[in-house]
Amino acid sequence: MKLDPRLEVDSTFVTNLNLCQVRLHHNAVFPWTILVPNRDDIIEIIDLNSADQLLLMKEMSLMSEVMCHLYRPTKLNVANLGNVVPQLHIHIIARFSHDKAWPGSVWNSGLSEPYTLSSKEKNIAQLKTTIQMLNNGESLD
Amino acid sequence: MKLDPRLEVDSTFVTNLNLCQVRLHHNAVFPWTILVPNRDDIIEIIDLNSADQLLLMKEMSLMSEVMCHLYRPTKLNVANLGNVVPQLHIHIIARFSHDKAWPGSVWNSGLSEPYTLSSKEKNIAQLKTTIQMLNNGESLD
Repeated sequence: MKLDPRLEVDSTFVTNLNLCQVRLHHNAVFPWTILVPNRDDIIEIIDLNSADQLLLMKEMSLMSEVMCHLYRPTKLNVANLGNVVPQLHIHIIARFSHDKAWPGSVWNSGLSEPYTLSSKEKNIAQLKTTIQMLNNGESLD
Repeated sequence: MKLDPRLEVDSTFVTNLNLCQVRLHHNAVFPWTILVPNRDDIIEIIDLNSADQLLLMKEMSLMSEVMCHLYRPTKLNVANLGNVVPQLHIHIIARFSHDKAWPGSVWNSGLSEPYTLSSKEKNIAQLKTTIQMLNNGESLD
């Protein structure tokens, strides 16, 4: 799969699942991960075949569990927009009633802040550990 | 299923699928449908059981096909936010490179316009026909 250079610049690889790669978005204002299917030439969910669509749902659910477990958000925002970068990517964002954009969306919020290197590495390590734990756990099929 | 009164006010019932009811959002600036699972007390996708999660993906795909067929958008925006109305609802919005909010998101755009009664009825009728057609079609399982 050829990753769009804007996704490459805006996020860091965390791990591969069966269908998608998990990436950490570089905007540190919100705990924010992205799922990118490891398939070529996919823009909409319906460009994936039926089996991959169901895999995508399983991985969206897994990452929802991971984000809830790690960050205890008020609400998850799960979205595929792609108006700027068409390559299919699903945002999974942990939102809090006390975050700076609440209850607005993160897009058009103008809020952006870089991670420190140590904070980014810590988040990636935590994500990897939690994904592995929940992926092997009994609460998920 | 008890529908949140804000969803009731902001949208009109179109039809029931196996899991979700399809609703037309009242903002006529964008072709905009909403899927609401007919289940009680569901806020996140992961509050649905595994079988319902897979049904949800099938219905998100069906409605994506319907929106593409009817409106020929540049891009679909498929999103579950819920910061204002927590009851799980998935937005499926047809976006165009010439629409007034492009490439921004529809949320926080400040763009809103009511349907005329005849235009709303026309859209609902077209949605019903297309859903029925594609739901019975050979291109979808």
